[in-house]
Parts: sequence; C-alpha cells; structure tokens
Amino acid sequence: MAEKLLSNYKKLMEKGRGLFILQSAVAVIHWDMETMMPPKAIKLRSQQLATLSRIEHKMSTNPEIGTLLEEIMRHPEYDKLDAVQKRNVYLTKKHYDEQTKLPEELVAEIAKQQAVTVDVWKKAKATKDFSMFKPELEKLVGLKKKAAEILMEVKETATPYDALIDIFEPKMTAETISRVFDELKEGLVSLLRKCENAPKQPDTSIFKRKVPVDVQRKISKALAKFIGYDVESKEAGGRIDETEHPFTTGYYDDVRITTHYYEDNFASSLFSVLHEGGHSIYEQNLNPEWIFQPVGTACSSGFHESQSRFVENIIGRSREFWVYFLPKLKELTGNILSDIDLDTFVHAVNQVKPSKIRVNADEVTYGLHIIVRFNLERDIFADKIMVTELPENWNQSYEDHLGVEIENDSEGVMQDTHWASGLYGYFPSYALGNIYSGQILAAMEKDLSNWRSQIAKGNFNCVKQWLIKNVHSYGNLYDPLDLIKKVTGEELRVKPYLNYLNEKYSKLYGF
Amino acid sequence: MAEKLLSNYKKLMEKGRGLFILQSAVAVIHWDMETMMPPKAIKLRSQQLATLSRIEHKMSTNPEIGTLLEEIMRHPEYDKLDAVQKRNVYLTKKHYDEQTKLPEELVAEIAKQQAVTVDVWKKAKATKDFSMFKPELEKLVGLKKKAAEILMEVKETATPYDALIDIFEPKMTAETISRVFDELKEGLVSLLRKCENAPKQPDTSIFKRKVPVDVQRKISKALAKFIGYDVESKEAGGRIDETEHPFTTGYYDDVRITTHYYEDNFASSLFSVLHEGGHSIYEQNLNPEWIFQPVGTACSSGFHESQSRFVENIIGRSREFWVYFLPKLKELTGNILSDIDLDTFVHAVNQVKPSKIRVNADEVTYGLHIIVRFNLERDIFADKIMVTELPENWNQSYEDHLGVEIENDSEGVMQDTHWASGLYGYFPSYALGNIYSGQILAAMEKDLSNWRSQIAKGNFNCVKQWLIKNVHSYGNLYDPLDLIKKVTGEELRVKPYLNYLNEKYSKLYGF
Repeated sequence: MAEKLLSNYKKLMEKGRGLFILQSAVAVIHWDMETMMPPKAIKLRSQQLATLSRIEHKMSTNPEIGTLLEEIMRHPEYDKLDAVQKRNVYLTKKHYDEQTKLPEELVAEIAKQQAVTVDVWKKAKATKDFSMFKPELEKLVGLKKKAAEILMEVKETATPYDALIDIFEPKMTAETISRVFDELKEGLVSLLRKCENAPKQPDTSIFKRKVPVDVQRKISKALAKFIGYDVESKEAGGRIDETEHPFTTGYYDDVRITTHYYEDNFASSLFSVLHEGGHSIYEQNLNPEWIFQPVGTACSSGFHESQSRFVENIIGRSREFWVYFLPKLKELTGNILSDIDLDTFVHAVNQVKPSKIRVNADEVTYGLHIIVRFNLERDIFADKIMVTELPENWNQSYEDHLGVEIENDSEGVMQDTHWASGLYGYFPSYALGNIYSGQILAAMEKDLSNWRSQIAKGNFNCVKQWLIKNVHSYGNLYDPLDLIKKVTGEELRVKPYLNYLNEKYSKLYGF
Repeated sequence: MAEKLLSNYKKLMEKGRGLFILQSAVAVIHWDMETMMPPKAIKLRSQQLATLSRIEHKMSTNPEIGTLLEEIMRHPEYDKLDAVQKRNVYLTKKHYDEQTKLPEELVAEIAKQQAVTVDVWKKAKATKDFSMFKPELEKLVGLKKKAAEILMEVKETATPYDALIDIFEPKMTAETISRVFDELKEGLVSLLRKCENAPKQPDTSIFKRKVPVDVQRKISKALAKFIGYDVESKEAGGRIDETEHPFTTGYYDDVRITTHYYEDNFASSLFSVLHEGGHSIYEQNLNPEWIFQPVGTACSSGFHESQSRFVENIIGRSREFWVYFLPKLKELTGNILSDIDLDTFVHAVNQVKPSKIRVNADEVTYGLHIIVRFNLERDIFADKIMVTELPENWNQSYEDHLGVEIENDSEGVMQDTHWASGLYGYFPSYALGNIYSGQILAAMEKDLSNWRSQIAKGNFNCVKQWLIKNVHSYGNLYDPLDLIKKVTGEELRVKPYLNYLNEKYSKLYGF
C-alpha cells in the first residue's frame, strides 16, 4: 500500500488519540464533580470544564485533520485500507464535519440557553408552572432547529429531526422509528391490558421494608461481583459511588458507576446497579486494540441502553437470577426479607402498572412513555405542533397510551430534564434499546440454550462472554442497524422483544 | 495609561488564566490517581497526564506570550503599571523564559531518567544496594547539571545549584542558606545536647496504644474543624482522604488533604492532618481577587512549609493546644487515653531524640537532617564530591550532626525519594520553613499577645486571621526574602526560631 496513505492515516489517528485521551480525562473531572468535589468548588469546576471544552474543540477542528482526511480519501489506493481503518476515517470525518460546520457562535448560544432553560425548568417544575418554562423552551427549540438544519446538510438526512436522532443513533430515522414504535405500541398496550385484567396480581409491599444503606452497599458489591464488575480486587477496574441520579462514566480500564440508596426502597439501587453495571461492562469490554480510535467507542445510545436493560431486566428480573440471588439477598439483609418466597419476590420485581413518571415505569409500560415523547419531538421539529401546545398533547397522549390522567405539568411534560437540556432525539434510544435487547436475547438463545440454568447457578460469565464477543467487542465498527444485523442476522424487528415480554408476563400473571 | 499597554497586559493575563485553570484541573486528576482511581487504570492515567502536560507545555511556550511580554516591557509607560501588575508581568516572564529556554529534548530526557531512577531507587532501597542505584543517579545528576547550567543563564544566578534552589525558593542562594544553616546547626546541636542530658525525659509509650481507624477519622474531622478547614458543612472547601503518604493539593476553593491512619500510631495521622491543614489554609486564603494570576499562588516551598509547620508544631505541639484538645481526644477515643495527664502528653508529643530517618524526626533534630542533605547537594553540584562518595559522606555527616550510626544505605542516603525524583534544591525549603515560622511567630506575638490563651480556649481563628492577613493574602507578590521582611520588618534571621525552641524545650525538659 502506498506509504503516503498509511503515514497520513497514522497521523490522523495520532491526532484523534490525543482527543480521546483528553476526553477520558474530562470524564474523570466530571465524575469528581458529581461524587467527590467540595460544594464550594463548583465555580472553579465550571471554569475548568469550559477551558477543557475549548481545548477539545480546538483539537477537534484542527484544520490539519481536514487536510489529512482529504488526502486520505482521494488517494487512489484508499480502497486498500481495511474495514477498521475505513471506519476510523469515516467516523473521524463525521465528527470533524459536525464540529467544523456548526458556527461557534451558535454552539455557544445553545450552551448558554441550555443552562438558562435547565435553571428555569427546575423552578417551573417546583412550582408546577409551565408558563414560566415555556418562553425559554421556545428559545432553545428555536436554536436547536437552526443547528438541526445545518446538521441535516452535513449528515445528509431527510429532515432536521433525523439529524438530531443521528447524534445518538447514527443513520436511524424518524420514519423507521415511527414504524417500529407503532408495532411496539400495539404489542405493549395489548400486553398491558392482559396484565391489568389478570387475576394474579403482585404484592409489592415488601419493597417498603427498610434496608439500612450500609447493607445496601453490600448488596451492590455482591451484584457487581455477579456481573464481573469487580470493585474489590487489586486488578479491579470499577467503582460504585453515590449520587443523586445513577450514571456510568469512563473509558476502558477506568469505568465507574454510581447509584442512589433509599433506605425505604432497596429495590431502586438494586436495579440501578444492574442497569449501570450493564453499561459498564460494555465500556470495559470494547476491543482493547482499538483504544483511542473512533472504532473503540460504543455503537450508539440505543445499543448502550440495550446492554444496560439486558442486565437489569432480562437477567436481573428473571426468575433464574432470583433463584440464585434471593438467598444471598436474605443473608445480606438479616431477617428483613426472611419470610419472602421466590415466586412472590419475582412477581413483585415485575409488577406491571401504568404510571405517570417514566423513571418509575416497569418493563411493559416503559416503551409507552418513550413513544409519547418521540411523537411530540418529531412533531415539534416538523413544525406540526408548537411548544405552547405540548402540555395538552402530552396529557392526551398519556390518557391514550397509558390510561392515566395527568394532574399538573410537573408530573407531565416537565418531568424529565432532557428537553430543558437540549437533548432532542435522545428519547427514542431508550425504547430502541429494549427492541435491540429482544433481538440480542433471541440470538443468544440459539448459541446458549442453557443460559437460564447457568444464571440460576450464579454463572453470568457465559452470558457476559457472549455479549462481549457478539456486541461489545464490535465497538463502533458498525452503525446500529448494521450491528443488529451482524449480531442477529436480521433487520431491526420488534417481535423478539414482544415475544420475550409475552412469554415472561403470561407466566407471571397467569394468562 | 496607554490603552495598548493595558490591553496587552489583559491579553497576557488571559493567556495565563487558561494555564492556571488547566493546572487546577490536572491537580484533580492527580488527586484522583492517588485516592480514588481503580488500580487497573494506571496506564490510561499516565497517558492522560502526559497529554495534559503536553497541552500545558504548549500553552506555556506560546510565542504570543513572548511577543506580549516584549511589547509590555518596552512600552514607554510600563512604569505606570501598579505593583501587582508588574509582579504578574515579572512572574509570567520568568515562567515563560524557563519553559522556553530549556530544550524540549533535555526536558523529555530528564522526565524519562527520573522515572527510571525512581524505579531503580525502590528496588535498591528494598535490597539495601546503593551500587544498583548509583549509575542511574549519576545519569540523572548529570542531566540536572546540564539543565541547571541553562537555568543559571536564564535566572542569572551565581551557580547552577542556585538556579535549582530558585525553582523552589526564588532568589534564595546557597551562600545565604549556608550562613543561616551554620547558625541553625549550632543552635540545634546545643539544644539537642541539653535535651539529651536533661533529667526529665518523656514517656512516649502512650502512642503505641491502638486507636481504631474509624476513631482516628473522627479525630481528623475535629482537628480540621479546629483550624477552620471544614469538611462537613455544605459550604465546605475541603476533603480528607487516605493515601500512602499524606499530601495537600488543590487551588483556592478546591483544596484537599490526605492522611494515613496507623492503628498503632494515632499520633502520626494527628500531626499529619495539622501539617497538611497548615498547607491547605494557605492555599484557600490566597487573595481571591488574584485567582488565575501568577500573584495568586503561594510565595515559595519554604513559605508553604512555614505554614504547615506553624500549625503542626507551633500550634499543634503547644501546651495550650492540648489544654483544649486533650479532653476532646479523650472523649473521641473512649477509655483508651483516659489515664493520661496533660503534662505527660505534651512532653510525649515533643520528645527530642536523634534518629536516622528524616520523616520521623522531631522539631529539634529535623533541621539537622536537612542540613546534611543541603551540604551534600551543594557539593555535588559544585563538583566537590561525586555521586559515588555520597554514602560515605552521608554516614559521616549523620555521625557528626546527630550522633547516629548509619548501618546501611536504605536508612541512609537512599531513605528519601527526592534525589531519585530529580528534586535537587528542594530540601533547604524544609528548614527555611522552620526559620520563617520562628520569625512569623515573633511578629505575631507583637500583634496577638494573648494567642496562647486563645488557643487554650479552642480559638484558632485569631491566629488564622493574622496569618491570612500577614502571609496568605500576599500570595506571590514578593519573593521569600522580601516577604519575610514585609511580614516581620526584619531580614531572614535564625534567632527567633532558636528562641522559640529554647523557651519551649527548656520548660518541657526542665533545664
């Protein structure tokens, strides 16, 4: 292969390497802000983050990257680069184009407006006053539309909203999402009705039993050990710390999760740790040869969510997991849960019940919350509805999809921070993650027919190794729709997820 | 004033601002490495630190800084800048010259050799084998001599060693240090003899009593509260974490200290927390208007040490402090120390006993350890002795100064990491810190004659406010020899420190 091509490729990767290293350092600074930082340091910290972000932007938009990309792509022997090299060039170009084509002024304006909107959102939510939130949200949506129109050109998407979706779920479109969400909705609503009408209903009163935080910390460690996110050994690559909202951050050998312990709701942290644990083993098991390269990142937000939900729900809410873990949980909690039998417990952790708040939703109704948000986002960015109409539309949708009546906007359209934070196009990832996880499960069952009995014995490793081999290690080599095909041999399909749910819940609810 | 001059000055400060912010972020990354980082992440962390250090170097050596400095300094109205502005220009120029005049290749070679030498030092120390350490130390000293010769030109010092001292103690010279250390040595040796020959000797067996680590953590918090380094309130700007070796890091509103708890030596952490606490209140109380400017940093390593030792020794080992704190300590430790009376305890924490290891030395003998090291450093860099002669010279000096016989080089010349780490010119700061602290105490006593009775009541704030006003808030406005004059009205003098020691120890030992 032409030496010049290879040497340019190496130079390009070298430039990217510095950027990935810097970003991984910024992740530590962010983590520290949420977990360890003395409160007084918040102003200094925001100055540090702004400075680092300026340095990052300068490195990302270095014109030398543009020159190298051009020289590489127009080189007559470009086609001789292998698939990984080509993907690295493609992803570098995509990132470079996005970073250079958005006017710095607009980016700064959006950042500023986001900060203002989040601030007002907090106050408006506290006072249940959408009219206070509305003008700032309108400004932010306006700015985001401008950005989306520019990104639409760069990314060559059909609509501005598709350009926003592409940030989180590359190459996914609102059209595809609409199609699969329609099918998802039908399946979920039908299943929800069956659960609601079933004679066998769960008893969830056990979750109100108080479990001291110290005990819950031990439960977290036991869960982390189960999934091989070992925080105690010398060779460990993980941490579990405590924050208001659980999250996962980090890169390869330095991945960290957080949780929140509620003394009177031990199940909350329990499933948080499994959820974040699913994210964390994804990040830890990206192909180690690809560190500091664009291919050495996760595929998409949706795929990330597929992994967290796989561990939280498909594993963590399975009967087999509790065959293994309930005795451990009883041991760790002393006599608090000693009277609970397996069936009661498993049904309780799988209660299906329509609710108003997304973050409290169960596996069956969760998708419906997402569908409501997706429809509204899509219509806002297509100028079919206006910001001012959001509350009415929201409330009607909740009635239609979930049969619940929203009493005020704080439990309605203002419940989530996403829109105030400028995260448009993000919500679909949550439900796509569920859909992917259903397909991944069906594929895994072909290779690993005995996975359930292994989990019942406490062996998660066989599942983990399968996920590493078939999902994690592919990193960002494919866009999500290609990766799902690579993993499962199929196009994006809703059926496997609905099958999984129907099979599980028909047993639990006895219909 | 000429607009151009002021606008250039502002531009210069803006460039420096980014650098200070970046450095404060790097401090967080370093802190995380020592306290929180999963062990597996060490390789990634060293890559992050290397990348950040390259960015820092690039920002420090930006030729625009050189141009701005030139334009500012040759401006006809330069003299109209105020003292703070001039000092900022001076310090920026000094840093810029040092960063740009040292060849990058030499800097990289030194960094590499330091890593190798530290590595070999650890092994050689473990096996008590100086001959293993020697060749690497020789290489490092050789490289440092080269650097020192270049820095001598830049800093216009009389000798290469003075250029190294200047890094830690600006404008200080080996000549001055030799003079004050001779006087210090005489005073310390004479005091040591008196203590050794006194009939009244302390009983230090109490320190062997086991105090659980959990209890020691509470002691730390109580000490932190005493000095106003409050780690528990919402407005707090501090942390106390646990590391192998205690240290202080941070900047203004984000200052953090660490300690090490030994169950069978509770005094170790107790005085560590006071020592690091002294460092921390200095950093926290630099003039807040000077944040991100060169004047908004501490004066020198010696002045830093003067503050840590002031809190650790002058306050923390005073009888009055224990009048206040011994009852608290007894309360916190349950019945572990209930039988100890004040006089026994105060004498025990002030035991004077020659030892071989610097870090375990008491207030009286500590300076002698430093003098040994300073003499050897000075002679090495003046080519009066060779690396190969170090052990012999070290052992003879210990015999002469402290009357102890060194049995092997691990308890001798290889005990400290400084020389392996390339820190030549640093050791004198430790003893200069003590000398400064004596002068500072004498000055404080003029303003605050009742400080001892205030401490006995648990009021450290009057002392702290005096230190803030007279030391901390000056930041880096003066070089140390000028600052000591500003604070005390006097030149550098050893007498006040010796007076303080003599008065204290004659009472304790009854001579």
